[in-house]
Amino acid sequence: MKFELTILGSNSASPAFGRHLSSQVLNIGQNFFLIDCGDGTQNRMMNFKVKATKINQIFISHLHGDHFFGLVGLLMSYGLNNRKEPLHIYSPPGLKPIVEIQFNHELGYPIFFHETNPEKHVLLFENTSVKVFSIPLVHRVPCHGFLFVEKRRPPNMIKEKILEYQIPFNKIKDIKKGANFITKDQRVILHKELTKPASEPRSFAYCSDTEFSKEIIPFISGVDLLYHEATFMHDLLEMASKTKHTTAKQAAIIAKEAAVKKLVLGHFSSRYSDLTPLLSEARTVFENTILATEGIPIVI
Amino acid sequence: MKFELTILGSNSASPAFGRHLSSQVLNIGQNFFLIDCGDGTQNRMMNFKVKATKINQIFISHLHGDHFFGLVGLLMSYGLNNRKEPLHIYSPPGLKPIVEIQFNHELGYPIFFHETNPEKHVLLFENTSVKVFSIPLVHRVPCHGFLFVEKRRPPNMIKEKILEYQIPFNKIKDIKKGANFITKDQRVILHKELTKPASEPRSFAYCSDTEFSKEIIPFISGVDLLYHEATFMHDLLEMASKTKHTTAKQAAIIAKEAAVKKLVLGHFSSRYSDLTPLLSEARTVFENTILATEGIPIVI
Repeated sequence: MKFELTILGSNSASPAFGRHLSSQVLNIGQNFFLIDCGDGTQNRMMNFKVKATKINQIFISHLHGDHFFGLVGLLMSYGLNNRKEPLHIYSPPGLKPIVEIQFNHELGYPIFFHETNPEKHVLLFENTSVKVFSIPLVHRVPCHGFLFVEKRRPPNMIKEKILEYQIPFNKIKDIKKGANFITKDQRVILHKELTKPASEPRSFAYCSDTEFSKEIIPFISGVDLLYHEATFMHDLLEMASKTKHTTAKQAAIIAKEAAVKKLVLGHFSSRYSDLTPLLSEARTVFENTILATEGIPIVI
Repeated sequence: MKFELTILGSNSASPAFGRHLSSQVLNIGQNFFLIDCGDGTQNRMMNFKVKATKINQIFISHLHGDHFFGLVGLLMSYGLNNRKEPLHIYSPPGLKPIVEIQFNHELGYPIFFHETNPEKHVLLFENTSVKVFSIPLVHRVPCHGFLFVEKRRPPNMIKEKILEYQIPFNKIKDIKKGANFITKDQRVILHKELTKPASEPRSFAYCSDTEFSKEIIPFISGVDLLYHEATFMHDLLEMASKTKHTTAKQAAIIAKEAAVKKLVLGHFSSRYSDLTPLLSEARTVFENTILATEGIPIVI
Protein backbone atom coordinates (compact mmCIF):
# COMPACT_ATOMS: atom_id res chain seq x y z
CA MET A 1 0.00 0.00 0.00
CA LYS A 2 1.27 3.44 -0.87
CA PHE A 3 2.40 5.76 1.91
CA GLU A 4 3.82 8.74 0.11
CA LEU A 5 4.30 12.40 0.93
CA THR A 6 4.42 15.15 -1.69
CA ILE A 7 5.50 18.54 -0.40
CA LEU A 8 3.87 21.32 -2.44
CA GLY A 9 5.42 24.25 -0.60
CA SER A 10 8.44 24.48 1.71
CA ASN A 11 8.91 28.18 2.42
CA SER A 12 7.73 30.23 5.35
CA ALA A 13 5.82 33.52 5.24
CA SER A 14 6.27 34.49 1.57
CA PRO A 15 7.26 32.61 -1.58
CA ALA A 16 10.94 33.02 -2.44
CA PHE A 17 13.66 31.44 -4.57
CA GLY A 18 11.15 29.23 -6.37
CA ARG A 19 9.88 27.88 -3.05
CA HIS A 20 6.20 28.10 -2.22
CA LEU A 21 4.03 28.27 0.90
CA SER A 22 3.26 25.38 3.26
CA SER A 23 1.20 22.56 1.84
CA GLN A 24 1.62 18.80 1.57
CA VAL A 25 -0.36 15.89 0.24
CA LEU A 26 -0.10 12.53 1.96
CA ASN A 27 -1.26 9.52 -0.04
CA ILE A 28 -2.02 6.51 2.15
CA GLY A 29 -3.37 3.77 -0.07
CA GLN A 30 -5.16 6.24 -2.35
CA ASN A 31 -6.62 8.14 0.60
CA PHE A 32 -5.31 11.64 -0.05
CA PHE A 33 -4.89 14.02 2.87
CA LEU A 34 -4.04 17.69 2.47
CA ILE A 35 -1.93 19.23 5.22
CA ASP A 36 -1.95 23.03 5.27
CA CYS A 37 -2.90 25.04 2.24
CA GLY A 38 -0.81 28.16 1.59
CA ASP A 39 -1.61 30.68 -1.12
CA GLY A 40 -1.56 29.06 -4.56
CA THR A 41 -1.79 25.45 -3.36
CA GLN A 42 -4.23 24.52 -6.12
CA ASN A 43 -1.71 25.74 -8.69
CA ARG A 44 0.93 23.50 -7.14
CA MET A 45 -1.46 20.57 -7.37
CA MET A 46 -1.91 21.31 -11.06
CA ASN A 47 1.87 21.52 -11.52
CA PHE A 48 2.47 18.17 -9.84
CA LYS A 49 -0.65 16.41 -11.13
CA VAL A 50 -1.97 15.79 -7.62
CA LYS A 51 -5.45 14.26 -7.68
CA ALA A 52 -7.10 17.13 -5.82
CA THR A 53 -10.56 15.63 -6.26
CA LYS A 54 -9.55 12.62 -4.16
CA ILE A 55 -8.90 14.76 -1.09
CA ASN A 56 -11.69 14.45 1.48
CA GLN A 57 -9.83 15.61 4.59
CA ILE A 58 -7.87 18.83 4.98
CA PHE A 59 -5.79 19.47 8.10
CA ILE A 60 -4.82 23.06 8.88
CA SER A 61 -2.12 23.50 11.52
CA HIS A 62 -2.86 27.11 12.44
CA LEU A 63 -4.41 30.31 11.14
CA HIS A 64 -1.38 32.14 9.84
CA GLY A 65 -2.00 33.07 6.23
CA ASP A 66 0.94 31.20 4.77
CA HIS A 67 -0.74 27.99 5.98
CA PHE A 68 -4.32 28.53 4.82
CA PHE A 69 -4.77 31.39 2.33
CA GLY A 70 -4.98 28.91 -0.55
CA LEU A 71 -7.96 27.15 0.96
CA VAL A 72 -10.78 29.28 -0.43
CA GLY A 73 -9.47 28.98 -3.98
CA LEU A 74 -9.40 25.21 -3.67
CA LEU A 75 -12.90 25.12 -2.15
CA MET A 76 -14.21 27.27 -4.98
CA SER A 77 -12.62 25.06 -7.61
CA TYR A 78 -14.18 21.98 -6.04
CA GLY A 79 -17.58 23.64 -6.41
CA LEU A 80 -16.94 24.68 -10.00
CA ASN A 81 -15.84 21.16 -10.83
CA ASN A 82 -19.14 19.79 -9.48
CA ARG A 83 -17.77 18.12 -6.42
CA LYS A 84 -20.49 16.34 -4.47
CA GLU A 85 -18.46 14.46 -1.84
CA PRO A 86 -18.37 15.98 1.64
CA LEU A 87 -15.16 17.74 2.59
CA HIS A 88 -13.87 17.69 6.16
CA ILE A 89 -11.61 20.48 7.36
CA TYR A 90 -9.79 20.21 10.69
CA SER A 91 -8.34 23.40 12.13
CA PRO A 92 -8.06 25.52 15.24
CA PRO A 93 -11.17 27.66 15.87
CA GLY A 94 -11.82 30.64 13.60
CA LEU A 95 -11.58 29.26 10.09
CA LYS A 96 -15.27 28.88 9.27
CA PRO A 97 -16.25 32.58 9.28
CA ILE A 98 -13.16 33.43 7.25
CA VAL A 99 -14.19 30.96 4.58
CA GLU A 100 -17.88 31.78 4.64
CA ILE A 101 -17.47 35.54 4.22
CA GLN A 102 -15.73 34.91 0.91
CA PHE A 103 -18.55 33.08 -0.84
CA ASN A 104 -21.87 34.66 -1.64
CA HIS A 105 -23.34 31.37 -2.84
CA GLU A 106 -23.49 27.70 -1.96
CA LEU A 107 -20.56 25.66 -3.23
CA GLY A 108 -22.70 22.62 -4.04
CA TYR A 109 -21.10 20.12 -1.66
CA PRO A 110 -21.09 19.84 2.11
CA ILE A 111 -18.14 21.23 4.06
CA PHE A 112 -17.71 20.15 7.66
CA PHE A 113 -15.53 22.39 9.79
CA HIS A 114 -14.06 20.44 12.70
CA GLU A 115 -12.72 22.83 15.31
CA THR A 116 -9.74 21.32 17.09
CA ASN A 117 -8.24 22.01 20.47
CA PRO A 118 -4.58 22.68 19.67
CA GLU A 119 -3.55 22.00 23.25
CA LYS A 120 -4.62 18.37 23.13
CA HIS A 121 -3.11 15.23 21.64
CA VAL A 122 -6.29 13.55 20.43
CA LEU A 123 -7.61 11.41 17.62
CA LEU A 124 -8.99 13.70 14.92
CA PHE A 125 -9.88 11.20 12.24
CA GLU A 126 -9.74 7.53 11.40
CA ASN A 127 -10.76 5.27 8.58
CA THR A 128 -10.00 1.62 7.80
CA SER A 129 -6.33 2.27 7.08
CA VAL A 130 -5.16 5.26 9.13
CA LYS A 131 -5.56 7.24 12.33
CA VAL A 132 -4.76 10.95 12.48
CA PHE A 133 -3.87 12.58 15.78
CA SER A 134 -3.16 16.19 16.72
CA ILE A 135 0.24 17.10 18.18
CA PRO A 136 0.20 20.18 20.44
CA LEU A 137 2.76 22.74 19.25
CA VAL A 138 3.94 26.04 20.68
CA HIS A 139 3.60 29.00 18.33
CA ARG A 140 2.40 32.60 18.40
CA VAL A 141 -1.19 31.50 17.74
CA PRO A 142 -2.96 28.23 18.61
CA CYS A 143 -1.22 25.57 16.54
CA HIS A 144 -0.87 21.83 16.27
CA GLY A 145 0.90 19.31 14.13
CA PHE A 146 -0.51 16.04 12.86
CA LEU A 147 0.49 12.43 13.33
CA PHE A 148 -0.63 9.94 10.69
CA VAL A 149 -0.38 6.33 11.82
CA GLU A 150 -1.19 3.48 9.52
CA LYS A 151 -3.37 0.79 11.09
CA ARG A 152 -1.87 -2.65 11.52
CA ARG A 153 -3.03 -4.68 8.60
CA PRO A 154 -4.07 -8.35 8.86
CA PRO A 155 -1.34 -10.91 8.16
CA ASN A 156 -0.70 -11.97 4.58
CA MET A 157 -1.49 -15.52 3.44
CA ILE A 158 1.49 -17.60 2.36
CA LYS A 159 0.66 -18.52 -1.24
CA GLU A 160 2.40 -21.88 -1.16
CA LYS A 161 0.25 -22.94 1.82
CA ILE A 162 -2.95 -22.10 -0.04
CA LEU A 163 -1.88 -24.53 -2.77
CA GLU A 164 -0.50 -27.13 -0.37
CA TYR A 165 -3.70 -27.40 1.69
CA GLN A 166 -6.07 -26.47 -1.14
CA ILE A 167 -7.61 -23.67 0.95
CA PRO A 168 -10.81 -22.37 -0.64
CA PHE A 169 -11.09 -18.63 -1.29
CA ASN A 170 -13.99 -18.14 1.13
CA LYS A 171 -11.87 -19.30 4.09
CA ILE A 172 -9.09 -16.81 3.59
CA LYS A 173 -10.76 -13.85 5.28
CA ASP A 174 -11.25 -15.86 8.50
CA ILE A 175 -7.71 -17.24 8.45
CA LYS A 176 -6.33 -13.71 8.10
CA LYS A 177 -8.37 -12.77 11.15
CA GLY A 178 -6.79 -15.61 13.15
CA ALA A 179 -8.76 -18.80 12.40
CA ASN A 180 -7.05 -22.13 11.92
CA PHE A 181 -7.82 -24.23 8.81
CA ILE A 182 -9.25 -27.73 8.91
CA THR A 183 -8.40 -29.87 5.90
CA LYS A 184 -10.78 -32.39 4.29
CA ASP A 185 -9.08 -35.15 6.27
CA GLN A 186 -9.71 -33.19 9.50
CA ARG A 187 -6.14 -32.05 10.12
CA VAL A 188 -5.92 -28.72 11.94
CA ILE A 189 -3.44 -26.36 10.29
CA LEU A 190 -2.57 -23.53 12.64
CA HIS A 191 -3.15 -19.94 11.58
CA LYS A 192 0.48 -19.04 12.18
CA GLU A 193 1.68 -21.73 9.72
CA LEU A 194 -0.50 -20.26 6.97
CA THR A 195 0.27 -16.57 7.33
CA LYS A 196 3.13 -14.12 7.65
CA PRO A 197 2.76 -10.79 9.47
CA ALA A 198 2.01 -7.71 7.37
CA SER A 199 4.72 -5.12 7.26
CA GLU A 200 4.93 -2.81 10.27
CA PRO A 201 2.48 0.12 10.25
CA ARG A 202 4.10 3.27 8.94
CA SER A 203 3.79 6.73 10.41
CA PHE A 204 4.36 10.37 9.49
CA ALA A 205 4.46 13.42 11.76
CA TYR A 206 4.04 17.01 10.60
CA CYS A 207 5.34 19.60 13.05
CA SER A 208 5.04 23.17 11.80
CA ASP A 209 5.04 25.88 13.04
CA THR A 210 6.59 25.50 16.48
CA GLU A 211 9.28 26.67 18.79
CA PHE A 212 11.77 24.04 19.97
CA SER A 213 9.74 21.84 22.28
CA LYS A 214 10.72 18.48 23.68
CA GLU A 215 7.11 18.09 24.81
CA ILE A 216 6.29 16.68 21.37
CA ILE A 217 8.80 13.82 21.61
CA PRO A 218 6.43 11.28 23.19
CA PHE A 219 3.93 11.84 20.39
CA ILE A 220 6.36 11.42 17.51
CA SER A 221 8.62 8.78 18.99
CA GLY A 222 9.93 6.39 16.34
CA VAL A 223 7.93 7.71 13.40
CA ASP A 224 9.14 6.72 9.96
CA LEU A 225 9.19 10.29 8.73
CA LEU A 226 9.18 13.55 10.65
CA TYR A 227 8.60 16.85 8.83
CA HIS A 228 9.82 19.48 11.25
CA GLU A 229 10.03 23.17 10.62
CA ALA A 230 13.56 24.58 10.47
CA THR A 231 12.92 28.21 9.73
CA PHE A 232 16.38 29.43 10.76
CA MET A 233 19.99 28.37 11.14
CA HIS A 234 21.15 28.03 14.73
CA ASP A 235 23.09 31.31 14.64
CA LEU A 236 19.66 32.98 14.60
CA LEU A 237 18.50 31.13 17.70
CA GLU A 238 17.37 34.34 19.36
CA MET A 239 15.21 35.23 16.35
CA ALA A 240 13.83 31.69 16.33
CA SER A 241 12.89 31.90 20.01
CA LYS A 242 11.36 35.33 19.62
CA THR A 243 9.17 34.32 16.68
CA LYS A 244 8.50 30.85 18.13
CA HIS A 245 10.22 28.96 15.36
CA THR A 246 12.89 26.26 15.34
CA THR A 247 16.45 26.13 14.02
CA ALA A 248 17.75 23.34 11.80
CA LYS A 249 19.92 22.07 14.65
CA GLN A 250 16.98 22.04 17.06
CA ALA A 251 14.83 20.13 14.57
CA ALA A 252 17.60 17.53 14.38
CA ILE A 253 17.77 17.30 18.18
CA ILE A 254 14.05 16.56 18.25
CA ALA A 255 14.49 13.93 15.52
CA LYS A 256 17.37 12.30 17.38
CA GLU A 257 15.72 12.26 20.79
CA ALA A 258 12.48 10.96 19.31
CA ALA A 259 14.48 8.30 17.44
CA VAL A 260 12.59 8.94 14.22
CA LYS A 261 13.76 7.09 11.12
CA LYS A 262 14.06 10.09 8.83
CA LEU A 263 13.81 13.87 9.19
CA VAL A 264 12.73 16.27 6.49
CA LEU A 265 13.41 19.96 7.12
CA GLY A 266 11.03 22.62 5.83
CA HIS A 267 9.35 26.01 6.36
CA PHE A 268 12.51 27.83 5.37
CA SER A 269 13.06 31.52 5.93
CA SER A 270 13.19 33.67 2.81
CA ARG A 271 16.64 34.85 3.87
CA TYR A 272 18.16 31.57 2.63
CA SER A 273 18.62 31.15 -1.10
CA ASP A 274 20.92 28.17 -0.56
CA LEU A 275 19.59 25.62 1.91
CA THR A 276 22.58 23.30 2.10
CA PRO A 277 23.95 25.00 5.25
CA LEU A 278 20.69 24.14 7.04
CA LEU A 279 21.03 20.55 5.91
CA SER A 280 24.65 20.36 7.04
CA GLU A 281 23.78 21.86 10.40
CA ALA A 282 21.02 19.33 11.03
CA ARG A 283 23.17 16.40 9.88
CA THR A 284 25.79 17.16 12.51
CA VAL A 285 23.12 16.03 15.00
CA PHE A 286 20.93 13.65 13.00
CA GLU A 287 22.42 12.06 9.90
CA ASN A 288 19.29 10.84 8.14
CA THR A 289 18.01 14.31 7.32
CA ILE A 290 16.82 15.65 3.97
CA LEU A 291 15.58 19.01 2.76
CA ALA A 292 11.97 19.44 1.69
CA THR A 293 11.98 19.41 -2.10
CA GLU A 294 8.73 20.50 -3.67
CA GLY A 295 6.95 18.06 -5.95
CA ILE A 296 9.25 15.06 -5.52
CA PRO A 297 7.35 12.37 -3.59
CA ILE A 298 8.95 10.89 -0.48
CA VAL A 299 8.07 7.21 -0.24
CA ILE A 300 7.64 6.08 3.35
CA MET B 1 8.71 55.30 -21.61
CA LYS B 2 7.72 51.71 -20.97
CA PHE B 3 4.09 50.69 -21.44
CA GLU B 4 4.13 46.97 -20.98
CA LEU B 5 1.60 44.37 -19.89
CA THR B 6 2.54 41.06 -18.25
CA ILE B 7 -0.30 38.60 -17.90
CA LEU B 8 0.21 36.40 -14.83
CA GLY B 9 -2.92 34.29 -15.22
CA SER B 10 -5.23 33.68 -18.16
CA ASN B 11 -7.67 31.01 -17.06
CA SER B 12 -11.16 31.38 -15.66
CA ALA B 13 -12.54 29.84 -12.48
CA SER B 14 -9.85 27.21 -11.73
CA PRO B 15 -6.26 26.70 -12.84
CA ALA B 16 -5.94 24.22 -15.69
CA PHE B 17 -3.47 23.10 -18.38
CA GLY B 18 -0.68 25.17 -16.85
CA ARG B 19 -2.84 28.28 -16.98
CA HIS B 20 -3.45 30.29 -13.82
CA LEU B 21 -6.09 32.65 -12.46
CA SER B 22 -6.69 36.23 -13.56
CA SER B 23 -3.96 38.70 -12.78
CA GLN B 24 -1.92 41.18 -14.79
CA VAL B 25 0.79 43.73 -14.13
CA LEU B 26 0.92 46.89 -16.20
CA ASN B 27 4.18 48.81 -16.18
CA ILE B 28 3.79 52.40 -17.29
CA GLY B 29 7.15 54.10 -16.94
CA GLN B 30 8.05 52.11 -13.81
CA ASN B 31 4.64 52.75 -12.27
CA PHE B 32 3.41 49.18 -11.69
CA PHE B 33 -0.32 48.52 -11.53
CA LEU B 34 -1.80 45.19 -10.54
CA ILE B 35 -5.07 44.25 -12.19
CA ASP B 36 -6.99 41.44 -10.48
CA CYS B 37 -5.26 39.04 -8.14
CA GLY B 38 -6.36 35.41 -8.44
CA ASP B 39 -5.18 32.68 -6.08
CA GLY B 40 -1.39 32.30 -6.20
CA THR B 41 -0.66 35.66 -7.85
CA GLN B 42 2.35 36.29 -5.62
CA ASN B 43 3.84 32.99 -6.77
CA ARG B 44 3.41 34.07 -10.39
CA MET B 45 5.19 37.33 -9.59
CA MET B 46 8.07 35.33 -8.16
CA ASN B 47 8.13 33.13 -11.26
CA PHE B 48 8.26 36.08 -13.62
CA LYS B 49 10.44 38.33 -11.45
CA VAL B 50 7.78 41.03 -11.26
CA LYS B 51 8.78 43.83 -8.92
CA ALA B 52 5.87 43.35 -6.53
CA THR B 53 7.21 45.95 -4.11
CA LYS B 54 6.78 48.64 -6.77
CA ILE B 55 3.03 48.14 -6.94
CA ASN B 56 1.11 50.88 -5.15
CA GLN B 57 -2.28 50.52 -6.84
CA ILE B 58 -4.31 47.34 -7.17
CA PHE B 59 -7.46 47.25 -9.28
CA ILE B 60 -9.95 44.45 -8.65
CA SER B 61 -12.65 44.00 -11.31
CA HIS B 62 -15.16 42.09 -9.21
CA LEU B 63 -15.48 39.88 -6.17
CA HIS B 64 -15.45 36.44 -7.74
CA GLY B 65 -12.73 34.42 -6.05
CA ASP B 66 -10.72 33.72 -9.19
CA HIS B 67 -10.10 37.47 -9.42
CA PHE B 68 -9.14 38.30 -5.83
CA PHE B 69 -8.34 35.25 -3.67
CA GLY B 70 -4.61 35.90 -4.07
CA LEU B 71 -4.87 39.36 -2.56
CA VAL B 72 -4.52 38.51 1.15
CA GLY B 73 -1.37 36.48 0.53
CA LEU B 74 0.20 39.41 -1.29
CA LEU B 75 -0.87 41.88 1.43
CA MET B 76 0.62 39.62 4.09
CA SER B 77 3.90 39.31 2.20
CA TYR B 78 4.12 43.08 1.87
CA GLY B 79 3.83 43.32 5.64
CA LEU B 80 6.42 40.62 6.26
CA ASN B 81 8.79 42.34 3.86
CA ASN B 82 8.50 45.58 5.87
CA ARG B 83 6.56 47.56 3.32
CA LYS B 84 5.90 51.09 4.51
CA GLU B 85 4.41 52.69 1.39
CA PRO B 86 0.63 53.08 1.35
CA LEU B 87 -1.26 50.64 -0.85
CA HIS B 88 -4.42 51.65 -2.68
CA ILE B 89 -6.97 49.00 -3.61
CA TYR B 90 -9.84 49.83 -5.97
CA SER B 91 -12.74 47.39 -6.06
CA PRO B 92 -16.51 47.08 -5.95
CA PRO B 93 -17.89 47.27 -2.40
CA GLY B 94 -17.34 44.34 -0.05
CA LEU B 95 -13.63 43.66 -0.20
CA LYS B 96 -12.52 45.39 2.98
CA PRO B 97 -14.27 43.11 5.52
CA ILE B 98 -13.10 40.03 3.59
CA VAL B 99 -9.50 41.18 3.88
CA GLU B 100 -9.74 42.40 7.45
CA ILE B 101 -11.23 39.20 8.89
CA GLN B 102 -8.14 37.32 7.71
CA PHE B 103 -5.57 39.28 9.70
CA ASN B 104 -5.42 39.34 13.46
CA HIS B 105 -2.70 41.98 13.48
CA GLU B 106 -1.65 45.19 11.79
CA LEU B 107 0.27 44.72 8.55
CA GLY B 108 2.58 47.66 9.21
CA TYR B 109 1.65 49.82 6.22
CA PRO B 110 -1.50 51.73 5.36
CA ILE B 111 -4.06 50.15 3.05
CA PHE B 112 -6.68 52.36 1.47
CA PHE B 113 -9.78 50.59 0.18
CA HIS B 114 -11.44 52.64 -2.53
CA GLU B 115 -14.98 51.39 -3.12
CA THR B 116 -15.97 51.88 -6.73
CA ASN B 117 -19.34 52.15 -8.38
CA PRO B 118 -19.19 49.50 -11.11
CA GLU B 119 -22.05 51.11 -13.01
CA LYS B 120 -20.12 54.30 -13.70
CA HIS B 121 -17.36 55.23 -16.14
CA VAL B 122 -15.30 57.48 -13.90
CA LEU B 123 -11.73 58.46 -13.18
CA LEU B 124 -10.40 56.21 -10.43
CA PHE B 125 -6.79 57.31 -10.26
CA GLU B 126 -4.29 59.60 -11.89
CA ASN B 127 -0.67 60.51 -11.47
CA THR B 128 1.74 62.50 -13.63
CA SER B 129 1.81 59.91 -16.40
CA VAL B 130 -1.49 58.03 -16.47
CA LYS B 131 -5.22 58.18 -15.83
CA VAL B 132 -7.20 55.09 -14.89
CA PHE B 133 -10.94 54.93 -15.55
CA SER B 134 -13.55 52.32 -14.72
CA ILE B 135 -15.48 50.64 -17.54
CA PRO B 136 -18.94 49.38 -16.54
CA LEU B 137 -19.31 45.69 -17.40
CA VAL B 138 -22.25 43.30 -17.20
CA HIS B 139 -21.62 40.20 -15.13
CA ARG B 140 -23.35 38.12 -12.45
CA VAL B 141 -22.02 40.39 -9.71
CA PRO B 142 -21.08 44.10 -9.79
CA CYS B 143 -18.09 44.30 -12.13
CA HIS B 144 -16.05 46.79 -14.07
CA GLY B 145 -13.07 46.83 -16.34
CA PHE B 146 -10.28 49.38 -16.34
CA LEU B 147 -8.99 51.82 -18.93
CA PHE B 148 -5.40 53.02 -18.59
CA VAL B 149 -4.65 56.13 -20.66
CA GLU B 150 -1.20 57.60 -20.79
CA LYS B 151 -1.12 61.38 -20.42
CA ARG B 152 0.07 63.41 -23.35
CA ARG B 153 3.70 64.18 -22.71
CA PRO B 154 5.32 67.55 -23.51
CA PRO B 155 7.02 67.81 -26.90
CA ASN B 156 10.63 66.67 -27.25
CA MET B 157 13.42 69.14 -27.92
CA ILE B 158 15.21 68.75 -31.26
CA LYS B 159 18.83 68.18 -30.23
CA GLU B 160 20.32 69.87 -33.30
CA LYS B 161 18.40 73.06 -32.48
CA ILE B 162 19.79 73.15 -28.95
CA LEU B 163 23.28 73.19 -30.45
CA GLU B 164 22.40 75.54 -33.30
CA TYR B 165 20.94 78.24 -31.03
CA GLN B 166 23.08 77.41 -27.99
CA ILE B 167 19.99 77.04 -25.80
CA PRO B 168 20.93 76.92 -22.11
CA PHE B 169 19.67 73.97 -20.08
CA ASN B 170 17.52 76.13 -17.80
CA LYS B 171 15.38 77.31 -20.74
CA ILE B 172 14.39 73.85 -21.94
CA LYS B 173 11.58 73.27 -19.47
CA ASP B 174 9.82 76.48 -20.57
CA ILE B 175 10.31 75.75 -24.26
CA LYS B 176 8.79 72.29 -23.80
CA LYS B 177 5.81 73.99 -22.19
CA GLY B 178 5.38 76.27 -25.24
CA ALA B 179 7.75 79.24 -24.81
CA ASN B 180 9.72 80.66 -27.72
CA PHE B 181 13.49 81.18 -27.39
CA ILE B 182 15.22 84.53 -27.76
CA THR B 183 18.83 84.34 -28.90
CA LYS B 184 21.63 86.63 -27.65
CA ASP B 185 21.17 88.76 -30.78
CA GLN B 186 17.44 89.09 -29.96
CA ARG B 187 16.10 86.76 -32.65
CA VAL B 188 12.86 85.01 -31.69
CA ILE B 189 12.95 81.29 -32.46
CA LEU B 190 9.48 79.85 -32.41
CA HIS B 191 8.65 76.99 -30.08
CA LYS B 192 7.47 74.84 -32.96
CA GLU B 193 10.84 75.11 -34.70
CA LEU B 194 12.61 73.81 -31.60
CA THR B 195 10.43 70.85 -30.70
CA LYS B 196 8.78 67.79 -32.13
CA PRO B 197 5.58 66.34 -30.68
CA ALA B 198 5.92 63.45 -28.21
CA SER B 199 4.59 60.12 -29.38
CA GLU B 200 0.83 59.65 -29.12
CA PRO B 201 -0.44 58.66 -25.66
CA ARG B 202 -0.94 54.91 -25.40
CA SER B 203 -3.87 53.12 -23.84
CA PHE B 204 -4.88 49.72 -22.52
CA ALA B 205 -8.35 48.42 -21.65
CA TYR B 206 -9.06 45.42 -19.44
CA CYS B 207 -12.53 43.97 -19.86
CA SER B 208 -13.16 40.89 -17.75
CA ASP B 209 -15.61 39.44 -16.76
CA THR B 210 -18.49 40.51 -18.95
CA GLU B 211 -21.25 39.37 -21.19
CA PHE B 212 -21.14 40.62 -24.79
CA SER B 213 -21.95 44.31 -24.46
CA LYS B 214 -21.60 46.99 -27.11
CA GLU B 215 -22.17 49.56 -24.37
CA ILE B 216 -18.44 49.46 -23.63
CA ILE B 217 -17.41 50.46 -27.15
CA PRO B 218 -17.38 54.24 -26.55
CA PHE B 219 -15.07 53.76 -23.57
CA ILE B 220 -12.50 51.60 -25.32
CA SER B 221 -12.65 53.13 -28.77
CA GLY B 222 -9.25 53.09 -30.49
CA VAL B 223 -7.21 51.74 -27.57
CA ASP B 224 -3.81 50.33 -28.41
CA LEU B 225 -4.48 47.07 -26.62
CA LEU B 226 -7.73 45.52 -25.50
CA TYR B 227 -7.72 42.53 -23.14
CA HIS B 228 -11.18 41.06 -23.47
CA GLU B 229 -12.45 37.92 -21.87
CA ALA B 230 -13.24 35.07 -24.28
CA THR B 231 -14.32 32.35 -21.93
CA PHE B 232 -16.01 30.21 -24.58
CA MET B 233 -16.06 29.38 -28.28
CA HIS B 234 -19.09 30.71 -30.13
CA ASP B 235 -20.73 27.27 -30.33
CA LEU B 236 -21.31 27.68 -26.58
CA LEU B 237 -23.04 31.04 -27.01
CA GLU B 238 -25.98 29.93 -24.90
CA MET B 239 -23.65 28.97 -22.04
CA ALA B 240 -21.82 32.28 -22.43
CA SER B 241 -25.06 34.24 -22.22
CA LYS B 242 -26.33 32.26 -19.25
CA THR B 243 -23.12 32.75 -17.25
CA LYS B 244 -22.66 36.33 -18.51
CA HIS B 245 -19.43 35.64 -20.33
CA THR B 246 -18.26 36.34 -23.88
CA THR B 247 -17.25 34.11 -26.78
CA ALA B 248 -14.05 34.55 -28.74
CA LYS B 249 -16.05 35.73 -31.75
CA GLN B 250 -17.94 38.27 -29.69
CA ALA B 251 -14.71 39.63 -28.20
CA ALA B 252 -13.45 40.13 -31.74
CA ILE B 253 -16.66 41.94 -32.73
CA ILE B 254 -16.13 44.35 -29.83
CA ALA B 255 -12.50 44.86 -30.88
CA LYS B 256 -13.50 45.52 -34.48
CA GLU B 257 -16.35 47.90 -33.74
CA ALA B 258 -14.23 49.78 -31.21
CA ALA B 259 -11.42 49.95 -33.79
CA VAL B 260 -8.82 48.93 -31.24
CA LYS B 261 -5.29 48.33 -32.50
CA LYS B 262 -4.76 44.91 -30.95
CA LEU B 263 -6.91 42.38 -29.11
CA VAL B 264 -5.66 39.87 -26.55
CA LEU B 265 -8.05 37.08 -25.60
CA GLY B 266 -8.09 35.68 -22.08
CA HIS B 267 -10.08 34.21 -19.19
CA PHE B 268 -10.31 30.86 -20.91
CA SER B 269 -12.63 28.08 -19.84
CA SER B 270 -10.96 25.00 -18.37
CA ARG B 271 -12.68 22.92 -21.04
CA TYR B 272 -10.10 24.06 -23.61
CA SER B 273 -6.68 22.45 -23.49
CA ASP B 274 -5.86 23.79 -26.96
CA LEU B 275 -6.67 27.48 -27.42
CA THR B 276 -5.90 27.82 -31.11
CA PRO B 277 -9.55 27.32 -32.13
CA LEU B 278 -10.48 30.36 -30.03
CA LEU B 279 -7.76 32.37 -31.73
CA SER B 280 -8.87 31.26 -35.18
CA GLU B 281 -12.48 32.07 -34.40
CA ALA B 282 -11.62 35.60 -33.25
CA ARG B 283 -9.33 36.22 -36.23
CA THR B 284 -12.17 35.57 -38.69
CA VAL B 285 -13.61 38.83 -37.33
CA PHE B 286 -10.56 40.76 -36.12
CA GLU B 287 -7.19 39.85 -37.56
CA ASN B 288 -4.85 41.49 -35.05
CA THR B 289 -5.75 39.15 -32.21
CA ILE B 290 -3.42 37.22 -29.93
CA LEU B 291 -3.91 34.76 -27.09
CA ALA B 292 -2.98 35.70 -23.54
CA THR B 293 0.34 34.02 -22.83
CA GLU B 294 1.38 34.08 -19.21
CA GLY B 295 4.66 35.73 -18.33
CA ILE B 296 5.60 37.06 -21.77
CA PRO B 297 5.35 40.86 -21.71
CA ILE B 298 3.27 42.59 -24.36
CA VAL B 299 4.90 45.87 -25.30
CA ILE B 300 2.36 48.56 -26.12
